[in-house]
Amino acid sequence: MYADDSLALHTDAYQINMIYTYWKQGIDQTPVVFEAYFRKMPFHNGYAIFGGLERIVTILEKFHFSDDDIAYLKSLDLYDDDFLAYLKNWRLKATIRAAREGEVMFNNEPLLQVDGPLVDAQLLETLLLNVINFQTLIATKAARIASVTTGQPLMEFGTRRAQELDAALWGTRAAFIAGFDATSNVRAGKLFNIPIAGTHAHALVQAYGDDYAAFHAYASTHKNVVFLVDTFDTLKSGVPNAIKVAKEFGDKINFQGVRIDSGDMAYLSKEVRKMLDKAGFPNAKIYASNDLDENTILNLKIQGAKIDVWGIGTKLITAYDQPALGAVYKMVSINGKSTIKLSNNVGKISTPGRKQIWRITDREDGKSEGDYLTFYGEDPNELDSLHMFDPNHPVISKTIKDFVAKPILHDIFVDGELVYKLPDIFAIKEFSKQSLGALWDEYKRILNPQTYPVDLAQNLYDAKINLIHKIRKDVQEMDK
Amino acid sequence: MYADDSLALHTDAYQINMIYTYWKQGIDQTPVVFEAYFRKMPFHNGYAIFGGLERIVTILEKFHFSDDDIAYLKSLDLYDDDFLAYLKNWRLKATIRAAREGEVMFNNEPLLQVDGPLVDAQLLETLLLNVINFQTLIATKAARIASVTTGQPLMEFGTRRAQELDAALWGTRAAFIAGFDATSNVRAGKLFNIPIAGTHAHALVQAYGDDYAAFHAYASTHKNVVFLVDTFDTLKSGVPNAIKVAKEFGDKINFQGVRIDSGDMAYLSKEVRKMLDKAGFPNAKIYASNDLDENTILNLKIQGAKIDVWGIGTKLITAYDQPALGAVYKMVSINGKSTIKLSNNVGKISTPGRKQIWRITDREDGKSEGDYLTFYGEDPNELDSLHMFDPNHPVISKTIKDFVAKPILHDIFVDGELVYKLPDIFAIKEFSKQSLGALWDEYKRILNPQTYPVDLAQNLYDAKINLIHKIRKDVQEMDK
Repeated sequence: MYADDSLALHTDAYQINMIYTYWKQGIDQTPVVFEAYFRKMPFHNGYAIFGGLERIVTILEKFHFSDDDIAYLKSLDLYDDDFLAYLKNWRLKATIRAAREGEVMFNNEPLLQVDGPLVDAQLLETLLLNVINFQTLIATKAARIASVTTGQPLMEFGTRRAQELDAALWGTRAAFIAGFDATSNVRAGKLFNIPIAGTHAHALVQAYGDDYAAFHAYASTHKNVVFLVDTFDTLKSGVPNAIKVAKEFGDKINFQGVRIDSGDMAYLSKEVRKMLDKAGFPNAKIYASNDLDENTILNLKIQGAKIDVWGIGTKLITAYDQPALGAVYKMVSINGKSTIKLSNNVGKISTPGRKQIWRITDREDGKSEGDYLTFYGEDPNELDSLHMFDPNHPVISKTIKDFVAKPILHDIFVDGELVYKLPDIFAIKEFSKQSLGALWDEYKRILNPQTYPVDLAQNLYDAKINLIHKIRKDVQEMDK
Repeated sequence: MYADDSLALHTDAYQINMIYTYWKQGIDQTPVVFEAYFRKMPFHNGYAIFGGLERIVTILEKFHFSDDDIAYLKSLDLYDDDFLAYLKNWRLKATIRAAREGEVMFNNEPLLQVDGPLVDAQLLETLLLNVINFQTLIATKAARIASVTTGQPLMEFGTRRAQELDAALWGTRAAFIAGFDATSNVRAGKLFNIPIAGTHAHALVQAYGDDYAAFHAYASTHKNVVFLVDTFDTLKSGVPNAIKVAKEFGDKINFQGVRIDSGDMAYLSKEVRKMLDKAGFPNAKIYASNDLDENTILNLKIQGAKIDVWGIGTKLITAYDQPALGAVYKMVSINGKSTIKLSNNVGKISTPGRKQIWRITDREDGKSEGDYLTFYGEDPNELDSLHMFDPNHPVISKTIKDFVAKPILHDIFVDGELVYKLPDIFAIKEFSKQSLGALWDEYKRILNPQTYPVDLAQNLYDAKINLIHKIRKDVQEMDK
């Protein structure tokens, strides 16, 4: 019925309903600032890797209401025609600032900021969160996995288990940025220039009836071969036949190794290593893929598993142990005045005001000392020393000298115009590596990492406390 | 670089590599049957709800390799030009059978079957699983939630937490089919004709500065209103101001109720109910939304929470407690001969042969007695009585008379042509309800349900056992 698939309606109905009220009452152009942030570190990790920016930019560049969108809204019989015309003519006017894709980020600091008319900020909320939440989650999970494989090749194999098509595609891109080396998803290879990987599945062996015939057929038709050896029996049939075919073909193929997809990976990989070495293939690699994640990999390594290349599917692409990041998007300023969302839970109270994040790094070693949030427009580089304190426990504090403060939020759109040049994916990957490299190892443990300081400038802290007191007082007076 | 986004490459690289081998060796047209199934019930539930069929049909109707796809594959420098021309000319020739969308399904029975050339079966695997896995998972989760709200309205609010855009869109459709009543996602409303729901967020209250002004503004501009009452203080500010505005506007608005999004839902809802009743609004409903799922809902109900309408987000749209279904896709027949994928784990051994599932229902009460798998083409309706036995424990058996056997798999594509008329979404929803209604309640408990029988016909069981013995013997001989 409504054939076109514009993304302008990829939003919650309440956004449209609120915009209707704002428009009717003439406050839709009120200047506001909204910020997206998450409250808790995903996977109890010590950091997150920001993902989703390129996706957001490519969507927003062509974001507008289509004729079908308007026709559908009209069919609901809820809105004036004038309002529908207003939506049809709507174009982005806001300034959008964000961390660079691949940046190391922490809880309770803005990943992205929309600074502009109320209508823009409200209209984009749901879409922005939908993208940021997922891609940041997967990039973070990928970084955790990469932290335990320590340089060994990592391949993303999760498409079949991803939560629908977009998750497979954009999830594998997020994983690549944060430390993976290749993907099995050919479309991701095509669209994002990510190296693709994959040789054959059990089906090839079933199609030929036995390991030898299948491996022989594959080697007859491909230069680079990795044989999957667990279809019938890894040690009795798979590996012996892989070796037999590799010997028969000799230099005619590039025998890269064998893949194990089931069974006891620690035991099997050690046995397979011995067999390959003994047969004269010390350079053939052992690939493993079977519901792996950072914890199973660590355990395999401790048991001395001889695995060289890791194929990771379900546990990465769905962020299995925590499948949602839970980032929120809150109004922090309206008409130039800071505002706050109160909650009975102290940890859920937002920090008011349009902010900038400064990564405070030591001038000598370049390591990150902590993040320091200021009102946007203030610059800690103008100070000789910085008093940093924990906003939840202000007595915990330190004074920093000889620092450099690097701004984390950058202009992406200014007054609706794209001003940011998207880096290519290899530059993003390298940037992410550098950003993570500036963190002390203590923040990068996968279990019980140190908590990285995310501190507030004194005036920002005071503004938050004063707003909380004011609102509490107002509520008490309401009750009288 | 490759601008078009055909879905033909939304597959694992190894599929293309295997097809290259098959094509080079002239076996790409070998007749095969592959079946998709899952091994374990998601969420330890007693049943699953099949989802994804419409998505698959709409993709396959226009599925072919684009010029860009071919150009990308050529850039990899791995394949002959003749092969690329072959892919470019490839069109679906297979027969595809599947359960109807919304059907109640169980583990170890085919949800979908591809019966045709080897190339077709291999090419579609990844995409089919990507879609079926997610949509079946979400439909099943939605059915669990609907089983505890017992007729109260259920709204899907999860877009911002979904795993990218497709998951939000297709997830909410799956939820609607399996028991939800509305979605907040406007695009899903437009594309799928699902009722949309949503009034306002905390941002409206922040924009107007206090509850009263915000509610007044909303009521001035909308007929149907639900006020969100927890921005500052639910009982002291939110609800009193909602009541005040509702009284002021009287018949000018349809005061549908209030929504609570934080705090102790059991306590707050009971207090709010009293306040609304006392103010003369006994018909105003209490909406709740705050990380809810079937378990929190059950607990709230046991505590006597006065909640009328449920808004469900993260826990549904990501299937938070089990974010992947894990369905697999295995070759069960080649050249008309049954084949099997062996495993050291007995539960992972596939059932060979092209199959049909028969739902055995009692002729009198219409209730399902169990599912009975036969070779495709056999019909248990020709028998007077049916001997059903547990394939893992054959001594557990029963004999059924006065039954009707209904086939579960239906032709969707025959020799590449679409023959199935997609039902409209309301028909699918009703079908799902009927299908679930035929199950005894014992299978529908959300905790520790009875295990529904999925049995094999004797000749199918014998074929499986014989194949296992044969392959074990072959492997032993290899070892000599």
